Amino acid sequence: MPKKIALLGSTGSIGTQTLDVISRYPGEFSVEVLTAGSNIKLLTRQAITYQPDSVVIGDQSHYQQLREALKDYPVKVYAGEEAIEQVVRGSNIDLVVAAMVGYSGLKPAISAIRAGKKIALANKETLVIAGEIIKKLVKESGSKIIPVDSEHSAIFQCLAGELGNPVDKITLTASGGPFLNYTMEMLEHVKPHEALRHPNWEMGNKVTIDSASMMNKGLEVIEARWLFDLLPEKIEVIIHPQSIIHSMVHFADGSVKAQMGVPDMRLPILYSLSYPDRLVSDLPKLDLIQCGALSFIPPDTKRFRNLALAYHALKEGGNMPCILNAANEVAVSAFLAGKIGFLQMSDVVEHTMEKTEYFASPGLGYLETTNSLARTEAQNYINELCKRS
Amino acid sequence: MPKKIALLGSTGSIGTQTLDVISRYPGEFSVEVLTAGSNIKLLTRQAITYQPDSVVIGDQSHYQQLREALKDYPVKVYAGEEAIEQVVRGSNIDLVVAAMVGYSGLKPAISAIRAGKKIALANKETLVIAGEIIKKLVKESGSKIIPVDSEHSAIFQCLAGELGNPVDKITLTASGGPFLNYTMEMLEHVKPHEALRHPNWEMGNKVTIDSASMMNKGLEVIEARWLFDLLPEKIEVIIHPQSIIHSMVHFADGSVKAQMGVPDMRLPILYSLSYPDRLVSDLPKLDLIQCGALSFIPPDTKRFRNLALAYHALKEGGNMPCILNAANEVAVSAFLAGKIGFLQMSDVVEHTMEKTEYFASPGLGYLETTNSLARTEAQNYINELCKRS
Repeated sequence: MPKKIALLGSTGSIGTQTLDVISRYPGEFSVEVLTAGSNIKLLTRQAITYQPDSVVIGDQSHYQQLREALKDYPVKVYAGEEAIEQVVRGSNIDLVVAAMVGYSGLKPAISAIRAGKKIALANKETLVIAGEIIKKLVKESGSKIIPVDSEHSAIFQCLAGELGNPVDKITLTASGGPFLNYTMEMLEHVKPHEALRHPNWEMGNKVTIDSASMMNKGLEVIEARWLFDLLPEKIEVIIHPQSIIHSMVHFADGSVKAQMGVPDMRLPILYSLSYPDRLVSDLPKLDLIQCGALSFIPPDTKRFRNLALAYHALKEGGNMPCILNAANEVAVSAFLAGKIGFLQMSDVVEHTMEKTEYFASPGLGYLETTNSLARTEAQNYINELCKRS
Repeated sequence: MPKKIALLGSTGSIGTQTLDVISRYPGEFSVEVLTAGSNIKLLTRQAITYQPDSVVIGDQSHYQQLREALKDYPVKVYAGEEAIEQVVRGSNIDLVVAAMVGYSGLKPAISAIRAGKKIALANKETLVIAGEIIKKLVKESGSKIIPVDSEHSAIFQCLAGELGNPVDKITLTASGGPFLNYTMEMLEHVKPHEALRHPNWEMGNKVTIDSASMMNKGLEVIEARWLFDLLPEKIEVIIHPQSIIHSMVHFADGSVKAQMGVPDMRLPILYSLSYPDRLVSDLPKLDLIQCGALSFIPPDTKRFRNLALAYHALKEGGNMPCILNAANEVAVSAFLAGKIGFLQMSDVVEHTMEKTEYFASPGLGYLETTNSLARTEAQNYINELCKRS
């Protein structure tokens, strides 16, 4: 029996790569649901190719157009965020691939978790914003989260067969991005198109900028805290420019397990789909002799303040990671729009963390409020910065 | 309840390090049996410290002296190879640590396996000589082999939680030893004391020479074939001079798992004792930033012919690995005694492999015969070489 998949965010970077992987295994997987935010053209094409049971377009204004385009196909068409939350609960779904980008991915992920679904989680924000709540929900519902991010997939793989064994720490590796060796002055003048060129990984725009600014690694630290139930001081970041070792677990007996591979998101995606099994793959394989020496250097949180800000948010807890994330989403948009400089992204995040009201144990409702408040705060500060310059 | 241990070869390098590890965990392990070949002084000291139920000295001529030395202690004293085979079968034993060196370790290991004991196997020869037979015996008796060698322990650890998942290949790492960058001419003039200085690992003399000549890696390839049930072409050797990555498993989905740590034999020994659990350890921990870049180069089987000879023996099968091992034991002794040169060790092995009668499916009895025949053949050839020079 093929595994029945609901793919949320099918037109994004992770979404399209997930379909690429699924195409390589006819008979193993069956695409039951596809959802997208607004890319109606690609969603239509995907729906025709994969003929899922249902498709959902998040932006309701595209509903009629999508229905029209698919009228000759046996595919149910829905629209709106609530419809996305609904389809993931369907009894025809074995695995929900949560590949939506940003805050909007939170509610559908929660819906799937509440329904006790297995969930391949690519949406970072879910755990960054609401990690503590999610952890509780997973426990209650018997859901299971399989990470898709290469670093978390690596840790998850290294922990297989090690249930209950004591861990000293985990090490998340970071490529260091395109500006690893830039001085502060150089960083100040970085342009969006330069930040969009990642040396190793092919990813969406938001993640690529986060990767260049190390915010991506910061968000991953927060994610790891909840995925693996580890205190912040047991989560370490190390710069590994070759992106071959995807992350490591240091067990308390001195043994370290690492997961490695070519930097290709399709590999952790494949694992999240096939888990706990592994499938034979024709994707590029690692050749250690070809890839040269593997090096490791400590991260520089002076030049890359975002990483320090993320640790700070994690230690503060409550709604602070939500504030960090919201401010960063706004800051990245402003940077990509040419409104603020590369280093100013951290200023925006730091300012917003200081100014937005802190709350120690927010529920999901208050996190939604926090998200709005923080975005407004960040946007106001950006406007102020623009006026000044 | 402490785990009850029989330690065979307690006075050797692995034996003493095993006792070092055990001493660090009062209450976790109880030493029930200690055996040694002839080092009566150290065995006596160990017996007084650990107060096992029994001690056995392999060399019967030392029996009276050992009995006398331990007459005031509640320790049973035995002597001879058969006594060693007997004590490992005792109902008071949970785990047999097989740390005897060379051919003599084979029979006690088989005795433990036949009794269905869990066995921490440090004696390479057991699987090199009789891998196919051992594999069958383990299956029949319900015994379990936990490898102690750092490379095999690494593979074993990487395979935890991966039962049934398809493997493309495994990579055994090799430091390359002290002569990694030596030319043929330099290798020709290597002296025993130079070969006894290993850059990374502290081991017994025989293993250290094997490590310098790459025969150690060759024997490990043969061991791995039986431990992990992999065809020779799925076992790869790679030179990794830093000895930080102890070995790797390449899964068929493109994911590679590596086990890492400081090069300290006490770490894999600890794992073999605590398996499937891990214990918190105060042994030195890995610091990737301190240890610098990790590099990988292909092995050179022109300068280090032993590796090619071992693959050849493995592919031939039958009694050929036994011939290889016997010839190498004799060659290493002759090299250490200054009778033959470093490169001549491979000549001795190759000659013996050509001249000793091949047998495709030998039983244990015929392997014993092979061992004697090959030793005689190797010794005769060494005598000839000595005469010539």
